[in-house]
Amino acid sequence: MALPSDALDELQALLGPRLALSAAEREAHGRNETHFPPLPPDAVAYPESTAEVAQLMAICARHGLPVTAWGQGSSLEGHALALKGGVTVDFAHMAAVLEVRPEDMVARVQPGLTREALNTELRATGLMFPVDPGANASLGGMASTRASGTTAVRYGTMRDNVLALEVVLADGRVIRTGTAARKSSAGYDVTGLFVGSEGTLGLITELTLRLHGQPEAVSAAVCAFPAMAPAVEAVIATIQSGIPMARIEFVDAATVAAFNRRDKAGMPEEPHLLVEFHGSPAAVAEQAERFGEIVAEAGGKGFRWAEKPEERAALWRMRHNAYYACLALKPGCQAWVTDVCVPISRLAEAVEETRADIAASPIPGPILGHVGDGNFHAVLLVTPGDAAEAETAKRLAARMAERALRLGGTVTGEHGIGMGKLDYMEQEHGAGWDVMGQIKRALDPSGLLNPGKLVRGN
Amino acid sequence: MALPSDALDELQALLGPRLALSAAEREAHGRNETHFPPLPPDAVAYPESTAEVAQLMAICARHGLPVTAWGQGSSLEGHALALKGGVTVDFAHMAAVLEVRPEDMVARVQPGLTREALNTELRATGLMFPVDPGANASLGGMASTRASGTTAVRYGTMRDNVLALEVVLADGRVIRTGTAARKSSAGYDVTGLFVGSEGTLGLITELTLRLHGQPEAVSAAVCAFPAMAPAVEAVIATIQSGIPMARIEFVDAATVAAFNRRDKAGMPEEPHLLVEFHGSPAAVAEQAERFGEIVAEAGGKGFRWAEKPEERAALWRMRHNAYYACLALKPGCQAWVTDVCVPISRLAEAVEETRADIAASPIPGPILGHVGDGNFHAVLLVTPGDAAEAETAKRLAARMAERALRLGGTVTGEHGIGMGKLDYMEQEHGAGWDVMGQIKRALDPSGLLNPGKLVRGN
Repeated sequence: MALPSDALDELQALLGPRLALSAAEREAHGRNETHFPPLPPDAVAYPESTAEVAQLMAICARHGLPVTAWGQGSSLEGHALALKGGVTVDFAHMAAVLEVRPEDMVARVQPGLTREALNTELRATGLMFPVDPGANASLGGMASTRASGTTAVRYGTMRDNVLALEVVLADGRVIRTGTAARKSSAGYDVTGLFVGSEGTLGLITELTLRLHGQPEAVSAAVCAFPAMAPAVEAVIATIQSGIPMARIEFVDAATVAAFNRRDKAGMPEEPHLLVEFHGSPAAVAEQAERFGEIVAEAGGKGFRWAEKPEERAALWRMRHNAYYACLALKPGCQAWVTDVCVPISRLAEAVEETRADIAASPIPGPILGHVGDGNFHAVLLVTPGDAAEAETAKRLAARMAERALRLGGTVTGEHGIGMGKLDYMEQEHGAGWDVMGQIKRALDPSGLLNPGKLVRGN
Repeated sequence: MALPSDALDELQALLGPRLALSAAEREAHGRNETHFPPLPPDAVAYPESTAEVAQLMAICARHGLPVTAWGQGSSLEGHALALKGGVTVDFAHMAAVLEVRPEDMVARVQPGLTREALNTELRATGLMFPVDPGANASLGGMASTRASGTTAVRYGTMRDNVLALEVVLADGRVIRTGTAARKSSAGYDVTGLFVGSEGTLGLITELTLRLHGQPEAVSAAVCAFPAMAPAVEAVIATIQSGIPMARIEFVDAATVAAFNRRDKAGMPEEPHLLVEFHGSPAAVAEQAERFGEIVAEAGGKGFRWAEKPEERAALWRMRHNAYYACLALKPGCQAWVTDVCVPISRLAEAVEETRADIAASPIPGPILGHVGDGNFHAVLLVTPGDAAEAETAKRLAARMAERALRLGGTVTGEHGIGMGKLDYMEQEHGAGWDVMGQIKRALDPSGLLNPGKLVRGN
């Protein structure tokens, strides 16, 4: 399918060479990190300003063309795939830090900026943007999927760290939501509505983000457990004790084996917790001591501290590359990365049942996650083209999702719905999913924005 | 205006004696805490279950009757007044703690429960619900206005502490939003949309709240400053230093005078900060020491510590009753309580300009607020029936709101829009206000829910 020629003329008049039509460009924007088949758009637009995005959207609205936003393409449920063709808007040219206000601890940024680029820019200010999904995602994309990651247990998710947005609506109107004030009761939380809306309600063209002070002292550690249950119990006890962990991550024995193979980690192949403490030197020391007591009580052992910055960096690099380490366990394989979140009290049960389910299946699936939030993943490893393995992965993923719902949790803690989790929306939300549809139709009656994602019949 | 007789018959068949029609009941639900004239409903309903609320709503929808929710009637912008008559739903009979899950740190409660009643119930669990707007408001009402108060600087607002809701929609459908899991990326944040929606999108019939551990150690203090500017500067420095204050409240000299007169506080009549620290004994001691250094540098003095629980209780009781202490400054007067929130960097400017504006006016107006969030209030004291004073208060309030917007803030940090702040919505949100209207019409096309509040033309 190609764009209608009158629409193409208008878009080219607006963007000139920044409207890409080549097969290479289209294919690059039809690929994704996971198992979904390629779905390229008809054209890729590289706008340079909010005004251009608004004009582009108005043209597409007039011609009934689908519009899909693109950040870094690192999402895991096919969010940015052009299911119905149309125009993909790549924010690569809108990736600036617009303003840093250290005294207000906020930054205004464009959506194409990555979180690592922002933190590089912030280094000298004593501030940081802590939300850390692992991938060097764009901040617009992170807002759109309500991303979180290793530090959410302390600093919250994108929901908690986006103060304000500028958004281009489906009809080309531009709105600003929120302010740089820390809180407001002035009407519906429209900012919060756009965070997590996966590009289905509007195109985010600017974000005001909440920053945090770089911690004065940081301390990280790993420790091993004889089995999964005591590790998870240590997490639950830690959260309940109110120790303000900056990170508390679980990796199972299979994940440790992947670390050992890829990163020469030299860790005992048992379940581990990876933790980090932020605060004043005295506070960090106290937190670490209290955590140590909980771990000892739960039967954990072999504490290894990463005191130096480069040791800590290596530790979290290893954790962030767990996906690639797992992939390397089965050369040539493809990963189905699952993502569920349950109430903390059901975490041990959820992880144990998942472990048993994968162990009884013919495919490997290391388990790891942000267990301080009750959030965990299995990385299901599948041979490409092997229909039986794909079917197994699909069944295991479905059982994880259903297990999460049965235990009072959610089918996605941080990856989002996209194309991959649509089948569970009815089950998780019931009539609440219809409410999402009503909001969608109110703001995008023609269904132009990211069709095929998140809401029913979109 | 009375209810149409067929609607009345149906409501009486549903509720029996729990549908009140007496003048006394109607008038009690037409009054409010502030300067708005009485606006009684035609009937007051006391449902006992979600099913009854849903049936009541369906009856009202069939007959086109307005429906307004009522908690404790403590809101400050006329939120619960029956501007177009109809049925006021008083949740007094739906005020139970349904479930406390200590291991998940959540509680399920009914909307009529007050925050103090919940905390009484929680006392033995080691947990607490920290959101504290001063008044002993209902939790349904607090969710509806996105309330916050003295502890938001540490524990967040209702936005951060409502995990899930059960809501009866305008057509009588019942939805459940969110789960007891700590985070989710499963679609639009419908929970967040209802928090702060002031009863205009649905009737909240159940809340799942996030609980926090009761702090192991607590320490509170007051200290005086020679002027307002250094007090505010000390607040800014404290926030930026990352000291995890549990409370940091500002009161101006006029408020202190009110405390001295009503509570025999014996404080120097200068601006003061009231602070509280939560944590382990060592952490609290360290926070207090660091805060002391900041205060000394800013020229603060006369630290007075409230170490014992009863001293702390007296301190916060005094702070919470500041409204009544201010009223007592001018016997027989009425208060217009304003509420703005600005970015922290503009706080000194906002407070100073407001102070000067009130000082140049003929009416008193003590200033106080949750300055760690950039949020503050003036309590403008007006003689009832004095049109000139009312006009002055209105003008001062308008100038505060416009000042907040000019400084990049919001016209309400925590009190909400109700009837009182409608005039600023266009100015604060621009086309974003239209988006709120689109959402309202999508979910309540006949405009039955709390008409006259929050959205345009409602």
